[in-house]
Amino acid sequence: MADTSNPASPFPPAPKDKAALEEGDDLTPRFDANGLVTAVVTDVADGTVLMLAHMNAEALSKTLSTGIAHYYSRSRASLWKKGESSGNLQTVHEIRTDCDQDAIWMKVSVSGHGSSCHTGHNSCFYRRIETGNGTVRLVADAEDVPRFDPDKVY
Amino acid sequence: MADTSNPASPFPPAPKDKAALEEGDDLTPRFDANGLVTAVVTDVADGTVLMLAHMNAEALSKTLSTGIAHYYSRSRASLWKKGESSGNLQTVHEIRTDCDQDAIWMKVSVSGHGSSCHTGHNSCFYRRIETGNGTVRLVADAEDVPRFDPDKVY
Repeated sequence: MADTSNPASPFPPAPKDKAALEEGDDLTPRFDANGLVTAVVTDVADGTVLMLAHMNAEALSKTLSTGIAHYYSRSRASLWKKGESSGNLQTVHEIRTDCDQDAIWMKVSVSGHGSSCHTGHNSCFYRRIETGNGTVRLVADAEDVPRFDPDKVY
Repeated sequence: MADTSNPASPFPPAPKDKAALEEGDDLTPRFDANGLVTAVVTDVADGTVLMLAHMNAEALSKTLSTGIAHYYSRSRASLWKKGESSGNLQTVHEIRTDCDQDAIWMKVSVSGHGSSCHTGHNSCFYRRIETGNGTVRLVADAEDVPRFDPDKVY
């Protein structure tokens, strides 16, 4: 049965029963008011969190059918095949959902430059937050240099 | 300078300049319309994604000042010291932000039962999405049994 609240979704509607949602074997994503779930993406090789992004029903469906990560770009308001411009496609090795099915976790390998951030960094999370002496500041790892020049790639 | 658009925030407002936001050393979280950033939480020991949650300025500030993970509970509309009821407190070993500073990544260790999901599982992401023969289904790992009985803990 398709989700009648979201005709574009090929997924069944989320069950009202909490046990079915949390312990069942049906994928019934709980898209938010904007039709999105949050996706966290990690490197299958070393577990680095590469990025957070959003998926609508179409993006999740395309990801499942192709094995290549697709997202929904909120800024462009369109389906986003990650890496289509830069060559940094993400191949999905494992995909999971969480207890209440409003989030997705994917383990991926990245082709091209091996970079998942538009800045050229491997990961979007290239800065640590450091505290001390009453101050808070961001610190980048010296060895984590961008893998491509965004001005040349985009 | 405090963020005048959010008087409760102790953080400076996000700079308009993209380079300053993405390459600077000031933590200037870009809270959304509801005053929240998304936090992804991984196990410092093995990289497992434990959960996704949200932080308002108070939760992020408390996390930074105490080293114990605090979130904002959208369902309870209040500050949420994770593990206060169950004993599964999260000690923060490293905390990062992403390129456009609307997300946080924390590496934590978990006390108590060592569980970050209200179901008793280690991780909220206890089900894989499996596809094949035109079907999609959720599969739990047999060895990933809940570490506590939610009916007894909550």
